[in-house]
Amino acid sequence: MMNKGFASDNNSGVHPSIFKAMEAANTDHVVGYGDDPYTQKAIDIFKEKFGQETEVFFVFNGTGANVLSLSTLTQSFHSVICAETAHIQEDECGAPEKFTGCKLIPVEPVNGKITPKAVLPHLKGFDFEHHSQPRVISISQVTEMGTVYQPKEIIALADLAHKHNMFLHMDGARIANAAVSLDMDFKSFTRDCGVDVLSFGGTKNGMMMGEAVLFFNPKLTDFTKYLRKQSMQLYSKMRFVGAQFQAYFENDLWKTSASHSNKMAKLLEKEVKQIPQIKITQPVDANGIFAIVPPKIIEPLRAQFFFYMWDEIKSEVRWMTSFDTTKDEIFDFVSLIKKLL
Amino acid sequence: MMNKGFASDNNSGVHPSIFKAMEAANTDHVVGYGDDPYTQKAIDIFKEKFGQETEVFFVFNGTGANVLSLSTLTQSFHSVICAETAHIQEDECGAPEKFTGCKLIPVEPVNGKITPKAVLPHLKGFDFEHHSQPRVISISQVTEMGTVYQPKEIIALADLAHKHNMFLHMDGARIANAAVSLDMDFKSFTRDCGVDVLSFGGTKNGMMMGEAVLFFNPKLTDFTKYLRKQSMQLYSKMRFVGAQFQAYFENDLWKTSASHSNKMAKLLEKEVKQIPQIKITQPVDANGIFAIVPPKIIEPLRAQFFFYMWDEIKSEVRWMTSFDTTKDEIFDFVSLIKKLL
Amino acid sequence: MMNKGFASDNNSGVHPSIFKAMEAANTDHVVGYGDDPYTQKAIDIFKEKFGQETEVFFVFNGTGANVLSLSTLTQSFHSVICAETAHIQEDECGAPEKFTGCKLIPVEPVNGKITPKAVLPHLKGFDFEHHSQPRVISISQVTEMGTVYQPKEIIALADLAHKHNMFLHMDGARIANAAVSLDMDFKSFTRDCGVDVLSFGGTKNGMMMGEAVLFFNPKLTDFTKYLRKQSMQLYSKMRFVGAQFQAYFENDLWKTSASHSNKMAKLLEKEVKQIPQIKITQPVDANGIFAIVPPKIIEPLRAQFFFYMWDEIKSEVRWMTSFDTTKDEIFDFVSLIKKLL
Amino acid sequence: MMNKGFASDNNSGVHPSIFKAMEAANTDHVVGYGDDPYTQKAIDIFKEKFGQETEVFFVFNGTGANVLSLSTLTQSFHSVICAETAHIQEDECGAPEKFTGCKLIPVEPVNGKITPKAVLPHLKGFDFEHHSQPRVISISQVTEMGTVYQPKEIIALADLAHKHNMFLHMDGARIANAAVSLDMDFKSFTRDCGVDVLSFGGTKNGMMMGEAVLFFNPKLTDFTKYLRKQSMQLYSKMRFVGAQFQAYFENDLWKTSASHSNKMAKLLEKEVKQIPQIKITQPVDANGIFAIVPPKIIEPLRAQFFFYMWDEIKSEVRWMTSFDTTKDEIFDFVSLIKKLL
Repeated sequence: MMNKGFASDNNSGVHPSIFKAMEAANTDHVVGYGDDPYTQKAIDIFKEKFGQETEVFFVFNGTGANVLSLSTLTQSFHSVICAETAHIQEDECGAPEKFTGCKLIPVEPVNGKITPKAVLPHLKGFDFEHHSQPRVISISQVTEMGTVYQPKEIIALADLAHKHNMFLHMDGARIANAAVSLDMDFKSFTRDCGVDVLSFGGTKNGMMMGEAVLFFNPKLTDFTKYLRKQSMQLYSKMRFVGAQFQAYFENDLWKTSASHSNKMAKLLEKEVKQIPQIKITQPVDANGIFAIVPPKIIEPLRAQFFFYMWDEIKSEVRWMTSFDTTKDEIFDFVSLIKKLL
Repeated sequence: MMNKGFASDNNSGVHPSIFKAMEAANTDHVVGYGDDPYTQKAIDIFKEKFGQETEVFFVFNGTGANVLSLSTLTQSFHSVICAETAHIQEDECGAPEKFTGCKLIPVEPVNGKITPKAVLPHLKGFDFEHHSQPRVISISQVTEMGTVYQPKEIIALADLAHKHNMFLHMDGARIANAAVSLDMDFKSFTRDCGVDVLSFGGTKNGMMMGEAVLFFNPKLTDFTKYLRKQSMQLYSKMRFVGAQFQAYFENDLWKTSASHSNKMAKLLEKEVKQIPQIKITQPVDANGIFAIVPPKIIEPLRAQFFFYMWDEIKSEVRWMTSFDTTKDEIFDFVSLIKKLL
Repeated sequence: MMNKGFASDNNSGVHPSIFKAMEAANTDHVVGYGDDPYTQKAIDIFKEKFGQETEVFFVFNGTGANVLSLSTLTQSFHSVICAETAHIQEDECGAPEKFTGCKLIPVEPVNGKITPKAVLPHLKGFDFEHHSQPRVISISQVTEMGTVYQPKEIIALADLAHKHNMFLHMDGARIANAAVSLDMDFKSFTRDCGVDVLSFGGTKNGMMMGEAVLFFNPKLTDFTKYLRKQSMQLYSKMRFVGAQFQAYFENDLWKTSASHSNKMAKLLEKEVKQIPQIKITQPVDANGIFAIVPPKIIEPLRAQFFFYMWDEIKSEVRWMTSFDTTKDEIFDFVSLIKKLL
Repeated sequence: MMNKGFASDNNSGVHPSIFKAMEAANTDHVVGYGDDPYTQKAIDIFKEKFGQETEVFFVFNGTGANVLSLSTLTQSFHSVICAETAHIQEDECGAPEKFTGCKLIPVEPVNGKITPKAVLPHLKGFDFEHHSQPRVISISQVTEMGTVYQPKEIIALADLAHKHNMFLHMDGARIANAAVSLDMDFKSFTRDCGVDVLSFGGTKNGMMMGEAVLFFNPKLTDFTKYLRKQSMQLYSKMRFVGAQFQAYFENDLWKTSASHSNKMAKLLEKEVKQIPQIKITQPVDANGIFAIVPPKIIEPLRAQFFFYMWDEIKSEVRWMTSFDTTKDEIFDFVSLIKKLL
């Protein structure tokens, strides 16, 4: 087995406490497809954290969470506006278009974030049958560039959306890292900022699998359960997602894990900043670092600590830290960089 | 927690050996999305069992497996012929139509099975652009009625399909129970009988989640990886499916579990047969029992041992046994029936 | 050019009065896509005939009309129940499934018609997320077997649909022939019998192209204009459909044409009934005749008067009459049959 | 009836010669759905002009033509790269995404045209299952901004596409205007420049309805006929499209019409250029003029000569000329502009 590397926070395993919770749930029979006490308990926790009228739907993975969010909000003649770098635009092999039929409209982000100014020119053609009708603005929190939207940035996008009878969706695959970065509870920078639907991720922060889709307006979800089944995201032994989320929230495990992950990124940033041949390209708000690295060292570096190229032409790489990244790994990695340079 | 009941084999938990294998895999980082040694090992095992040229794709669940099978085999103007009782027809909320665009053509089964005679009238309109082009015959093994296709029955359907340039798909959500029932190895009643694509299920026989889609003609799978991602079935921490399948095949755990489950069904059948007010309606080939039960006892019975109504009008119920069903549970259940009658 | 034959009423050309109306509309510029006086006038006529709150959408063809009807009524997790012989089931190459994502559930018809009794067993699984939700019953008037639903038969199906919060759709590709057959005005056997949405056909009764989709509940159509455009059915020079429908209704041209067509079918039926080797298989309610014909005469007959085989195995053929079929053609055709026998 | 205006070339009627051809075809019965001599003749003409191995499919309208082109070339996990201003991106209400499932990737055009340089950054992620696979570059000729690609510009895009195993599609809704502008025959700037599939439009240049989709590689079209039917674009009385195209090509009617239309645009350009308050924003290559016009005159101008706003913020309008635009109309329009200023 190679070193942990910095490929992705989903290359990590499962946090031991979460594993134990699944083990504890592995007893007797319970009704399948979510009608079990573990799932119910997890739903209750989400309602506590986000408000009682929150509707909670568990799914398998992040793409499933985003597609269920969008398919609940849209009909096929709608459009969804997102960053050019958004996961739904770049990394889901067209699942949103395929399943919703909608048009995705990519806008150029700044540090991974989109702004009302960039979105506004696309809010046109309302009521004009020739034009896909704008329906959703979708943002990622943490963004795919490792940056975090500030509450006021989210509010501005939510206001813009709502003013046009549109919705704001947040892809929170790394929402725990965002919460830690902002030092806020989850609700304060999602629902309270006008987010309508949230893909709440767990897998990238120490869960085995499972994401929650949270709808803050229960009127939207009359048909969501059918869409979840039809999109192949209804898990039979759902108790094992419910049990994980219970453990995830117990003693704020999510926070401990995400804090650690973010700290490791900050440490890596600090160390790497001292290396003049390397240029960090994005603010390090959470657990991802983007850097331009001399091409010659990339392959030998990847051979020992695996990570992904972000932009071959610019020689830009992405390093992700994880809940289980250690200081020693950071130091070993930086040492190797220095040695290779 | 109520009694285990006989609702479904997916109301069970995870077999302890499978749980242990996941735990053993929960160490270090591995590359996500299947490029890891656990997944590779599991693929190797499938190739050993089904032939080296078998292509293996892991997905989350049975609906995902069926949709990935069908979407690989079809274009949107095709049709898929299946039993009226088939899972793809009755229990997937239209996922096959939604994702493939195809028409499903249900034919009336006998004891859950379809025959060439029943399929033949639908093999028409070839080359006629007004008509959905027949492309796949899909059968379930074990069927949704708890019966098992004999090899010669499968061969007959495969021959019919291939004669018309069509494919035979098998939904093997309970394929282990079929193998035990037939007392055959997997390959002998699938690939060797002409099955082209197999949804190989594990969840209903003691796994936590995860199914394999097996293609016996590698020429079919040029694009399957994209379809898996687009259908939201690509699991990031795929090692935990790989590890499960390794344990599933080790020491023929699958066989031990399925044998037990089938035996428990046979025991329940034997006991119930002695009760004159109850009529078993289908051959008990595997781990499901269908029975007509006096309406008045159904609710009190379900209150203690949960199970599902199959047909309200006929007062027909379905009882499923599981790898962890015990003899005592069978006897307690039968006692309760007798008491209630 | 061969004889007119009895292949289909859409093998005919355009009624001269309709042609003249298009010519008269071919002057100056008008706004495209329906915002023109010809289209508006045609809409007004439909509103007059079916009630002012009727919403009217013109499309290119019958498949387009059916798909626009169904896509307005459904979401992707719904199902549509229809006859096994329905055009949407047999003759649209899966367009309804592809565009709506819905499941079509075919039920066995009697003389092309479905009944509440046949539909009822499929009205199940409501609120159960595993099951495609029944949403629409769709019938064809005239049916594909040349028969006509009586008002009470339509009412019974409408009542059944509405009782289950479902809709009744009518595919009226040959609705004029039905009106003549029933000797009723259009509204009396559609809207007044509980039909919710009607595909009102013109092409098969002397128009060049163009069908109208009529929604009797305007609340349904908030998004229909987008669905029409997205389904590629929005015609730029729509005035030429509007103008045709004006002519179609002027002096009840539709009735003159359909009456003639039906009469010719009756004449053919009468003549053919006297030939003992030929067996008419369906009631001749409108302009289609289904007959079992000795195989040996079919090819020579088709060589002079083209028509389609309906069922090769039974040696059953379909003969359609048209607005321009002449008595002489009937007599010549029958003579040839007799000669060949 | 208002003045003709400059709203769109599809606000015009039908050229009298084309109308006559339809009338001449309106006799007797012919087989429906394209198996008739008129359609066959039109296909022959296309083969003559574009090469015998060209495959020709007639459809109803431009959106239908584009969708049939793209659906033949793609599977759902593909992407299509086009200009931000492309009809398929802006004006088809998401029909391409809905029907193909593909992702559309808009790139910023210069004067409505895209370049290899702008496309290149999107040709990435090949073989990477997370990323929609680039499959088609689609350009419009004439562009939506009234400009015309030069042959070398087309060749450059075709080469780029083919180098990446992709296809070049051309949306030729106004291809006749492009041919006249380039003073070339159709084949020379389409097939000969590497275009793989062409939506050949007729409606905007004097036809009633009907477009042809031309595939220059017959290997691509094995399934196109099914896709045409399933996309609701198969016309029953297709002879009336065939007859129109015959007339369209007879005596180069297409050229006479498009030449006139282009000349009228040039005349309008010349006249308007002399008005200092108006700024023409795009090269006038064909029959469209884009101009920034003082806001105050727009409404009174539109009241007499209808046309569309292009960009409200910039006060930019679009004026289209047509085959039946007269010099007097141009002069009257310009006089009115001057008077209003």
